[in-house]
Amino acid sequence: MIHADFAVRHAGQLATMMPSAGDPLGCIRDGALAAHEGRVVWIGHDGELDAQVDLDGDQLDAAGACVIPGLVDAHTHPVFAGSRADEFAERLGGAEYQAQQSGERGIVRTVQATRQADPAALLALAEARANRFLANGTTTIEAKTGYGLDLPTEAKSFDVLRHLSARTPLRIIPTFLGAHVVPPTIDRAAYVRALMEEMLPAFKAQAVFCDAWCEKPAFTPSETRAILGRAKTLGYQLRIHAAQLAPGEGPEIAAELGARSADHLEFATPAQVKALAFAGTVAVLCPAANFTTRGPRPPIEAMRDAGLPMAIASDLNPGTSNSESLPHAMSLACVAWGMTPRESLLGATVHAARSLGLEGFAGCLQPGSFADCILLDVETPEAIPYYVGVNRVLQTVAGGVVWRPS
Amino acid sequence: MIHADFAVRHAGQLATMMPSAGDPLGCIRDGALAAHEGRVVWIGHDGELDAQVDLDGDQLDAAGACVIPGLVDAHTHPVFAGSRADEFAERLGGAEYQAQQSGERGIVRTVQATRQADPAALLALAEARANRFLANGTTTIEAKTGYGLDLPTEAKSFDVLRHLSARTPLRIIPTFLGAHVVPPTIDRAAYVRALMEEMLPAFKAQAVFCDAWCEKPAFTPSETRAILGRAKTLGYQLRIHAAQLAPGEGPEIAAELGARSADHLEFATPAQVKALAFAGTVAVLCPAANFTTRGPRPPIEAMRDAGLPMAIASDLNPGTSNSESLPHAMSLACVAWGMTPRESLLGATVHAARSLGLEGFAGCLQPGSFADCILLDVETPEAIPYYVGVNRVLQTVAGGVVWRPS
Repeated sequence: MIHADFAVRHAGQLATMMPSAGDPLGCIRDGALAAHEGRVVWIGHDGELDAQVDLDGDQLDAAGACVIPGLVDAHTHPVFAGSRADEFAERLGGAEYQAQQSGERGIVRTVQATRQADPAALLALAEARANRFLANGTTTIEAKTGYGLDLPTEAKSFDVLRHLSARTPLRIIPTFLGAHVVPPTIDRAAYVRALMEEMLPAFKAQAVFCDAWCEKPAFTPSETRAILGRAKTLGYQLRIHAAQLAPGEGPEIAAELGARSADHLEFATPAQVKALAFAGTVAVLCPAANFTTRGPRPPIEAMRDAGLPMAIASDLNPGTSNSESLPHAMSLACVAWGMTPRESLLGATVHAARSLGLEGFAGCLQPGSFADCILLDVETPEAIPYYVGVNRVLQTVAGGVVWRPS
Repeated sequence: MIHADFAVRHAGQLATMMPSAGDPLGCIRDGALAAHEGRVVWIGHDGELDAQVDLDGDQLDAAGACVIPGLVDAHTHPVFAGSRADEFAERLGGAEYQAQQSGERGIVRTVQATRQADPAALLALAEARANRFLANGTTTIEAKTGYGLDLPTEAKSFDVLRHLSARTPLRIIPTFLGAHVVPPTIDRAAYVRALMEEMLPAFKAQAVFCDAWCEKPAFTPSETRAILGRAKTLGYQLRIHAAQLAPGEGPEIAAELGARSADHLEFATPAQVKALAFAGTVAVLCPAANFTTRGPRPPIEAMRDAGLPMAIASDLNPGTSNSESLPHAMSLACVAWGMTPRESLLGATVHAARSLGLEGFAGCLQPGSFADCILLDVETPEAIPYYVGVNRVLQTVAGGVVWRPS
């Protein structure tokens, strides 16, 4: 007998996301899973659980609901203060996002608000966001700093993430995004030097990833190569914001340096897409940011042709995507871009996990994986994006424990 | 002193939606409202409430959150069984909605499922939808039948709405939509005759409105004129599905017959828009349905120029908009169509209420209006659409009672 301290019973369909003969989602009808100490220890047909599992703990009756792995959000900016609702409204009247990245507006405005916020207030904001992630089915996020852009505020942002991790069952994978933009009141070269010589070494122990925005309002290709090259030498894994607003070298740099992910990619060329696929990089696409900036769709067909895995992320941030909902991002990827429901589901689970180095542990359900799953009021896992703008998550389980909103 | 049995205190901003000098939203800072027996009896600055109101009952502390009237959804189809998730997926691959309205698919497929569903199951589905409306901030819906399309199933649908009204604080304004499409296995002329001679008289006591879809897959202009003309004679108020998929006479018919609303209107001409404005009809726009069918945007500028009031509705239905969220529809109206946040908010409150004949009672807060309001985690009422795909409603109050999900 397998010992377990938690079980989910009677999943109408249980999508393991482990491909089996003829079914890329690895669905089990009337499925069940058992967990012990936060990991899945058994998965199969409900009728076989009692004979194989010695359960000493709670069981959650899915009562026929679909069960899938907890969603994985591979691109989020959850540590910030302040609002940019007025900039959202200005874009509806025709203002361009890129033109908003100057003066007292755009990212630097959020930087000012985040610098001024006291740590407790910043943590309270981040915790409310964590609760919305969980409520909407996400159990793992990549979480960027990048609204500090000086040593003390980036440190404060990492503190927020560390305290948040202790207060929420949401899994948080921290990314250092000191190279978000050049902050005001510091010379460009001086900031790049501070980044490379002070901040990158200082935050190595606190971040898994280093990220940089390689684009006109932010860093040049040569700055990006220098920053991310240094980060790699220090032992960071890499992500990159690339080719979101215009064509650029970001995707090549991701491929050259073996980045885990290249994000946005609206303007990636077919050759860049092939280079990313060859390098084993994951494309992390951000449909909600694309939607509110009214950008062109990314080259989905070229990505499919190249076999480049496409993750779907919320890109939660105050400028372009004030949303913690991956099901919403999946609906947008389908309706606005023509991705299939299956692609969108793989994008918010398996491919997102791969971009975080969590393949086999998150975004799938198998013995050994995290016991993170969600119960959904949908007829099949592929029906998730059919429900637009409403939350169909019934329950969120993280680490073998049913999450209850605080 | 004014006697009250319920109050909301400390609204950071309380949008009454009653225009006052310089402020079309009639916002009160640190606002409060008091209610008695389900109606607002007092509204003003929180600091003045204690001196003016004798409160014997619960008070809800908004703690600085925004408070606005409960949202009003002027176009919903909440009584149906079955799923059309596969048709949603087919459209992503290029299938057109109009081409799906034949054979065993489209609306007639939902009609079959609804005819087969037993009343208790249909009520349970409708009640889950009512809970999602309330959770997402809607306190009043127009609710259409129209998935029965025979006397017994239309009657069953009205029964569901009547039982639903008794079980939920959601206000439900029933609309008879026997003229949704011509159902299968009955001759077109015979169906129109049955509609006019049997169904319209039979349901007069149960419906406030009669609606008809005047468009190629449904009813011709002459059929629509006959059906709605007869309905008007019988005392129904009128709504019409018009010019959604192609140009057509629907908007003229709405103006001619003095319909309360003309809905969809993607293909309305400038002359039709003017005629609707002159007739006092409200345009009820359905951005989520427009989004998933990838239709053109409605002629917003012409509507603005003509002074035609624009309501924003969810169009909840299993074919094109499986969504009970008006905030989501507001985001789409802004981002996809370029409406302003203020227009979208007026659309989901004041104009929607007007289209239902509830102006002054719903969609606004003043002495005498329904005590329906929502508390929102947003910085200003106009920031609602800035939050995309997530629910920022903190509390829903309907009839002076705080709603709790069952």
